[in-house]
Parts: sequence; C-alpha cells; structure tokens
Amino acid sequence: MSTKHRIAQESLKLFNQYGLGRVGVRDIALYLKISPGNLSYHFPKKEDLVLYIIEEMISLNTVAFQTYLALSVPTLFDYLRLVKQLLLNNYQYRGITQEFVELSRILNIERFSYKEVEKSRLDIYIKIFKRLDTAKELQLNANDIAFLNSFMSLYGRIWVAEAFISFQHKSKSEIINYYLNFGARQFQLFATPKGKKSIRKFLETELL
Amino acid sequence: MSTKHRIAQESLKLFNQYGLGRVGVRDIALYLKISPGNLSYHFPKKEDLVLYIIEEMISLNTVAFQTYLALSVPTLFDYLRLVKQLLLNNYQYRGITQEFVELSRILNIERFSYKEVEKSRLDIYIKIFKRLDTAKELQLNANDIAFLNSFMSLYGRIWVAEAFISFQHKSKSEIINYYLNFGARQFQLFATPKGKKSIRKFLETELL
Repeated sequence: MSTKHRIAQESLKLFNQYGLGRVGVRDIALYLKISPGNLSYHFPKKEDLVLYIIEEMISLNTVAFQTYLALSVPTLFDYLRLVKQLLLNNYQYRGITQEFVELSRILNIERFSYKEVEKSRLDIYIKIFKRLDTAKELQLNANDIAFLNSFMSLYGRIWVAEAFISFQHKSKSEIINYYLNFGARQFQLFATPKGKKSIRKFLETELL
Repeated sequence: MSTKHRIAQESLKLFNQYGLGRVGVRDIALYLKISPGNLSYHFPKKEDLVLYIIEEMISLNTVAFQTYLALSVPTLFDYLRLVKQLLLNNYQYRGITQEFVELSRILNIERFSYKEVEKSRLDIYIKIFKRLDTAKELQLNANDIAFLNSFMSLYGRIWVAEAFISFQHKSKSEIINYYLNFGARQFQLFATPKGKKSIRKFLETELL
C-alpha cells in the first residue's frame, strides 16, 4: 500500500470517528506520526485529501455497478446484492458521505464535476430497471422507472444522512439490514411472482 | 413582532443564503445593525438562536399535523396537502435543516430531545395511515404501514439534503413539485380507486 493510500485510509478512520469538520490536517499528521510537511507533500490541502478519499469510494461503487451489469441474467437477488454493496461502501465512508454540505463545498472548490457522476448513475439505473423488466423480474412502465430512479437517488445516497440523525447508536448490521429491508420492500411493489421469489431469497440469505 | 422573533427571522435569511456554518453572531449583529451585546442579550450563543429557530419550525409542523388530524373525513388529497405544507416549512428553514450534522451537534449541546419529536411524529403517521385505510383511501396491511413510515421518515425529512446536492440551482416551485410528484406516486401504489382519484385531484390543483 502506498504512503498516500495509507494516509487516506487512516484519515478516513478519524473522519468516521470524529466527523469531517472536527479533524484537521494537524490532527492527522499527529495521529499518523508524520510531519505536517510530509502530509502536505502528499496532500497540499485537506480538500485534496477528502477528494482523494471520495474518488476512492466512487471507484468502488463503479466496480459494484460493473460487476452487476456483467451478469448475463439480471435478477432482483443480484440487484439487491448490488444495493447492499453500495450501502456498505457508503457506510465505510460515512465520515465523509454524511457531511454532504461540507463535501459539496470541497467538491466545488476542487472543480470536481459531481453532476457527471450523477448523470452516469441515473443512466445506469434506467438500464438496470429496463433489463429487470425484460427478464420479467419487475413489471414497469415509464412512470414506474422514473419513480424508482427518484427513489434510488434519495434512498441510495441520502440514507446515511437519516442514519446519522436517527440511528447513531445502532450497530452497522442493524442499520444496513434496516435499509435493505426497506429497499427490498419498495422493489417488491413492482416485482413479478418470479421477482418476489428472488427478493425473498435475498432477504433469507444476504442480510448481515 | 418581538425583537427576539425579528432577530430569528433575519438570521434565518442569512443562514438560507450563506449556510449555517458560514454565518457567525458578529455577521448577524452587523446585518441587523444591532450591537453584539444586544444580540447576546436575546441569544447568549449561536446555539440558542439556532434552537429557537428550529423549535419555531417544529411548532409550524405540529400545527400542520393538528390541522390535518382535525379534519373529520381523512382523504389522500388532504394528506398530500399536509405533506406539501411540511415540505414548504422544511424549505423555508433550509439553511438549518439541510445542515443536519451541525444541527445535530447543536441539539445535543442544548440537550434538546429530538428523539421525542421523532417518536411523536412516528405515532402520528401510524394514526394517519390507519385512518386513511379505514376511510378506504389506502389499502394497507401492517407491513405496508411500516414501509410507509420508513418512507416518510426518509422522504419527509431528508429530501432537503438531496435537494442541496442535486437541485441547488432549481427554483423553489420546481423542487417542491418534484418531491410532491414523487411522494404522491409512492402513495398511489397503495391507493384504492377512490384514493387514486383523491391523488389525481391533488396533482391537478395543488402543485406550485
């Protein structure tokens, strides 16, 4: 593991524990037992560090989407496994993803185009839902697809905000299982009998 | 209007425009053309001011719930009008409600029990959904009620977080209408033909 990557990993631990706003570059250098000069060699500003970490998470999410899309037979079982992976990634990076106001500010400063990521994810969801319709796991019209996009946009990204407010003292598995049950239930409303079976299998075997 | 109330109103304008974290007590005194001493007479700390403002919003929401519950015949039309009022309140106080990480910190410092508000809202939603089921506007089993609670808990509170990320440059009416359409669609999935008519009427007459 490169020094840069190690710094990012250890910083994320601090952000997860204390919150993005309460951890400064000096705290990080102190915690890592490196000089501020060494830290700023790798990351000139805190913003560079945060950007590096969040790009890491976006890459992990991209891998999860690609892995799912590479499957030849789309099922709701595998789709919910994808959702689970996205929730776990978001949870792993919660010290940053929960503080979206601060994160937005940083991405703006760094001229990072989040709009592009957003657009590409939207396109992927449309593709996913159409494939699940063709595979007769879901039964969807155009309105349903728009609705499920809105749902995934809110639920798939913003659940960490709610978890921060309402589930701060719950364990990781309680939190993830709550959202998996919630998400599964939404898709059940559009599922064919085959799709419902697929969801049941997921809930019986894939909760934490 | 009391001086205290006027200070709160004007401060909220600043928070909405610049963000909670970027507006300090000195900025507020300067903007209001009052002395820092006069400001701190009314609100010793910024936290006191934020608490005052957020309690104002919670009261407005309580009034909206009570007004709805006072109706003798529960309909989805009136329920969606309630949702609209809650969205509008949340939007009006967005400078604070969007920054829930900072808000949580302040509420903790002030020993404000948000858990109680949360619990009371949950009880109200259960009551609302059961009444709408009895009135044959919705058709719900116990699982459906739990699901709609999860939905309202995420959608009804956390949409402002998503709006901050994704809709920063959209107008108020575009944002509110987007979420009203989205929310209406969720309830449509559980609506009886009578309930569906009620939703249609809302969408035809009550969007901004």
